[in-house]
Amino acid sequence: MATVKGGRVAVIGASGYGGLQTIRLLQGHPGLSVSFLGGERSAGQRWSSVCSFLPLPDDPTVESADPDRIAACSDFAVLSLPNGLACQLAPQLLERGVRVVDLSADFRYRSLEQWLQVYAKEAGSLNRQDAELCSSAVYGLPEWNGPAIADAKLVAAPGCFPTASLLPLLPFLKQGLIETSGIIIDAKTGTSGGGRVPKEAMLLAEASESIAPYGVIGHRHTSEIEQMAMEVAGQEVRLQFTPHLVPMVRGLLSTVYARLRDPGLTAEDCTTVLEAIYRHHPCATPVFRFCRWAPIPPRSGRATPTVPCCRFRWTPAPASWC
Amino acid sequence: MATVKGGRVAVIGASGYGGLQTIRLLQGHPGLSVSFLGGERSAGQRWSSVCSFLPLPDDPTVESADPDRIAACSDFAVLSLPNGLACQLAPQLLERGVRVVDLSADFRYRSLEQWLQVYAKEAGSLNRQDAELCSSAVYGLPEWNGPAIADAKLVAAPGCFPTASLLPLLPFLKQGLIETSGIIIDAKTGTSGGGRVPKEAMLLAEASESIAPYGVIGHRHTSEIEQMAMEVAGQEVRLQFTPHLVPMVRGLLSTVYARLRDPGLTAEDCTTVLEAIYRHHPCATPVFRFCRWAPIPPRSGRATPTVPCCRFRWTPAPASWC
Amino acid sequence: MATVKGGRVAVIGASGYGGLQTIRLLQGHPGLSVSFLGGERSAGQRWSSVCSFLPLPDDPTVESADPDRIAACSDFAVLSLPNGLACQLAPQLLERGVRVVDLSADFRYRSLEQWLQVYAKEAGSLNRQDAELCSSAVYGLPEWNGPAIADAKLVAAPGCFPTASLLPLLPFLKQGLIETSGIIIDAKTGTSGGGRVPKEAMLLAEASESIAPYGVIGHRHTSEIEQMAMEVAGQEVRLQFTPHLVPMVRGLLSTVYARLRDPGLTAEDCTTVLEAIYRHHPCATPVFRFCRWAPIPPRSGRATPTVPCCRFRWTPAPASWC
Amino acid sequence: MATVKGGRVAVIGASGYGGLQTIRLLQGHPGLSVSFLGGERSAGQRWSSVCSFLPLPDDPTVESADPDRIAACSDFAVLSLPNGLACQLAPQLLERGVRVVDLSADFRYRSLEQWLQVYAKEAGSLNRQDAELCSSAVYGLPEWNGPAIADAKLVAAPGCFPTASLLPLLPFLKQGLIETSGIIIDAKTGTSGGGRVPKEAMLLAEASESIAPYGVIGHRHTSEIEQMAMEVAGQEVRLQFTPHLVPMVRGLLSTVYARLRDPGLTAEDCTTVLEAIYRHHPCATPVFRFCRWAPIPPRSGRATPTVPCCRFRWTPAPASWC
Repeated sequence: MATVKGGRVAVIGASGYGGLQTIRLLQGHPGLSVSFLGGERSAGQRWSSVCSFLPLPDDPTVESADPDRIAACSDFAVLSLPNGLACQLAPQLLERGVRVVDLSADFRYRSLEQWLQVYAKEAGSLNRQDAELCSSAVYGLPEWNGPAIADAKLVAAPGCFPTASLLPLLPFLKQGLIETSGIIIDAKTGTSGGGRVPKEAMLLAEASESIAPYGVIGHRHTSEIEQMAMEVAGQEVRLQFTPHLVPMVRGLLSTVYARLRDPGLTAEDCTTVLEAIYRHHPCATPVFRFCRWAPIPPRSGRATPTVPCCRFRWTPAPASWC
Repeated sequence: MATVKGGRVAVIGASGYGGLQTIRLLQGHPGLSVSFLGGERSAGQRWSSVCSFLPLPDDPTVESADPDRIAACSDFAVLSLPNGLACQLAPQLLERGVRVVDLSADFRYRSLEQWLQVYAKEAGSLNRQDAELCSSAVYGLPEWNGPAIADAKLVAAPGCFPTASLLPLLPFLKQGLIETSGIIIDAKTGTSGGGRVPKEAMLLAEASESIAPYGVIGHRHTSEIEQMAMEVAGQEVRLQFTPHLVPMVRGLLSTVYARLRDPGLTAEDCTTVLEAIYRHHPCATPVFRFCRWAPIPPRSGRATPTVPCCRFRWTPAPASWC
Repeated sequence: MATVKGGRVAVIGASGYGGLQTIRLLQGHPGLSVSFLGGERSAGQRWSSVCSFLPLPDDPTVESADPDRIAACSDFAVLSLPNGLACQLAPQLLERGVRVVDLSADFRYRSLEQWLQVYAKEAGSLNRQDAELCSSAVYGLPEWNGPAIADAKLVAAPGCFPTASLLPLLPFLKQGLIETSGIIIDAKTGTSGGGRVPKEAMLLAEASESIAPYGVIGHRHTSEIEQMAMEVAGQEVRLQFTPHLVPMVRGLLSTVYARLRDPGLTAEDCTTVLEAIYRHHPCATPVFRFCRWAPIPPRSGRATPTVPCCRFRWTPAPASWC
Repeated sequence: MATVKGGRVAVIGASGYGGLQTIRLLQGHPGLSVSFLGGERSAGQRWSSVCSFLPLPDDPTVESADPDRIAACSDFAVLSLPNGLACQLAPQLLERGVRVVDLSADFRYRSLEQWLQVYAKEAGSLNRQDAELCSSAVYGLPEWNGPAIADAKLVAAPGCFPTASLLPLLPFLKQGLIETSGIIIDAKTGTSGGGRVPKEAMLLAEASESIAPYGVIGHRHTSEIEQMAMEVAGQEVRLQFTPHLVPMVRGLLSTVYARLRDPGLTAEDCTTVLEAIYRHHPCATPVFRFCRWAPIPPRSGRATPTVPCCRFRWTPAPASWC
């Protein structure tokens, strides 16, 4: 199927943070329109009573996510649901010819077995048997999988942390410029990533004036980052990923540390590597301009380290500007 | 009973915001000590596992609030419980000789009938029949009820908004300097006032970068403020109270508007009124220094208004410094 | 001149908060383009080095604000300058046929004399003699002056507080529904209103976790609000305006208190008044949906007040959604 | 000299953030009292007009920092001044028998030559010739230099980042448990560390809703951390230090990555190392309870990494609780 310039889009899970931002982006798009609003808790209510600050034409009613109803009015569906729900709804939509973008983690792994290891406990979906569908989903990182996304029937949108971590990392892995073990990703996120369902740790009175790491070992985004990193590197990649919660609503910063294979590579060389790959990507470009990093210069009066550790760091811009 | 300089204090509802601050204040007091930690959800756990950042000597275990257990080890109990629970526990403690400070609204009205009108629906305690206890509780505003508090068996700590509103208002009502109708209180609070139980509106991702009024008409603190205002004024007092939620953790500001009876009163006169009353109150004094207000001067080239509306405003300091 | 659908726009004071938002809005407009970037401190620098997060086509160079240069390439100029500078530049641009939108206070008063009383000390421009230009400028409140703005050569953009205060107030003044004295406006603003030039009170370490009133009596926006209110009411209007600084970046809330002339008017009546006037105004409408207010109902068991004070309040939505 | 239990303390630079916190801590101390308030800009003013929210007994007048005046009334002086000023004042105070705690960086390096390399440009004090005084100053990290601090005439208080970085790092260096090269410190700070003098980057409207690294290579705290780390390790230590600015007022978090020499060491072993050293340190203990870290377990189905990179992390508690 060729690239689609427009279409009717169902948004399932419309009143969560993911759904709201999807609607907002759709409203600014010349060819796409909102055709269906899905939500269990708010089913039967007018959109204006669910969300008064984001008015929609004709003030549609929120509905339960019925596949036939969705297929009747939509070319695409964006699923913004808790992990373990999209994998139940997506196949029914695909069968009816609706192309699906899933914002959850349900289709981010090529291997269903790996997904079950990482998410099954949370998602409570041990009976999934859609291994084939998993392996056919396209990992939706536009700068790297653009053509495949354009043709895809099922797109798995990457996690927030993997997006911010892979964009700076992949160019260097692709070209073999860094060591593939010992990579450290120290990431910082705002609290909206935790979703709109109330949790104590996400209260303003808890999260303000504080910063804390969480999921210190084995955060599930680690394996998601590694999967894509290995695909691009063509070899085993091992990294340490530590997320932190920061008192801001949106935005995410990854500070990435890796060792250059060639200690002679300069900061300018590294910039050139990033520029060459992201030049024509309108979302990555402004991010790229925020890039602040430098190789470690040999310090006068000291021995030059033989293993040049942590030779670059990369930091994206605040999300609000992208 | 004479003023008590020290004693053993049970804190019931220890892991909520009210309980935590109570413990923190007790730790800084030379004569008071924490004797019992009560909490339903965390009963049986060591305090260090409930709250690692506020260590207590010998790391006590949190217990269910058993009146006999409390009475065996405590002279006082501070109840930091949801509305409708303190009125069940307090009588049992009083019977056993424990003096009680209740942080909820359960004993703030002299009239049980009025409490039932305002709180019964929320508290689900329509069977309360402790009218006598209600009328005997002391309203715990230290600057105005100091001696009664020192002798009280049951103290009802004032609400946060009433405290910030009554302190500036009472001196002027006491001396008959302002009109008793048409008073406007525009109050602003941080989000910890909403408690530690997660609610969507109190999420950092909702409350940040926003300010909004709530409970616009008939907020229940209106009648609490009016009750004390009428006691001090000796006549009917009518006021408009509008609270706002502000993106900060703690602190509360009341901007109070009232009409001076004597349009000749100056800003300096008003300052003198406040100073005379609060001079010896160590908590009100720093607050008082933040007072910024002024009578409206007649504007040149304009008719002087015959009814001097809104002649003063008063604003306390950030709570963190008091 | 007829309504203009497009044109080339010079932005003077481009790197301040007003300039940046102007550029951002222009980028999203189908017919308007940025033709000139003016700035004294950054003159001679590429835009990308001044502001990397808001890239512009061809990365223009910031220039000193030369009227001939501006006129050669621009149909319009938006001036985002400190008070007292626009009144020097605007006449030179108008002479050269450039239409001007001024974001400062320089042309907000019809009477130069009044401007001199309020702003001359700050602006240091006592020699202004452009009384005629002042009286010909259009006060740029689109919901009330739309046609005049479309034809104007010089538009004075209203202050932030006046905008938030006048929108809810004017419909009631226009229809004579409220008393014209004793109006109280309790307004709350984020800190970006204080501009990008560093001031101690606007530091995050000062303004966070705090809320405070400022300019308690005689804030200069009072007279700006009164000027427009009197024009619409057709009579003298007197109001009390108290601004507060709130720990948020953008957004502004006005809580307005006034007395209804007819105590029988209901909340629904008041909503109808607002809806009828703002129905077709896309920016005011979402704001209007946030309106939370109500007349005071007579309370059971109490005398109905004879003078219904503070019968409505009105609060706009967070700025980020408008 | 033996440990001093009390004394009269002069605070120089009293109205900055460092001075204010010093005064606050002194007020809570049973044996220490504020004897002198020094400040250039506010010299001659009453303290209450400089800082109304932190009242002092008898409302002292702020004075210029005259050494004779200070010595006449003080046993100790805390200097909270910009870099390059303390090194001028401290010798004059020491000569007069006043013991000095300096909060700036002026005496943090044993070697004056190194200080000149790192700070001279900023401090503009190239003529410093007090090499001997530099080498005799005690680096004021109480958990490691307690006895020396108690006897010291001149204490150099450590930087904020070095404190948060050294506390978790030193126990492991002391015992030779980690490799001494390739250590990565990813640190996050609130904005009050930037001081009270207004800077654009520290405005609430700039720093809110954002997180950014700064001083990416060669931040001057790097060498300060390395100096103390090498003293404790007894060998060369090389580390990468990257600070980030976070939208909070106070508090600082260091996430430290290092490689264990013995891959068999468990998380429990590491906890034991920290506990054993900090057990009797009341400030480090609560911090230590927040410690969240773990060695990387070998992942099933994957090769165990031969070089166990990043085996622990350590994160202190929010500063407000320490």
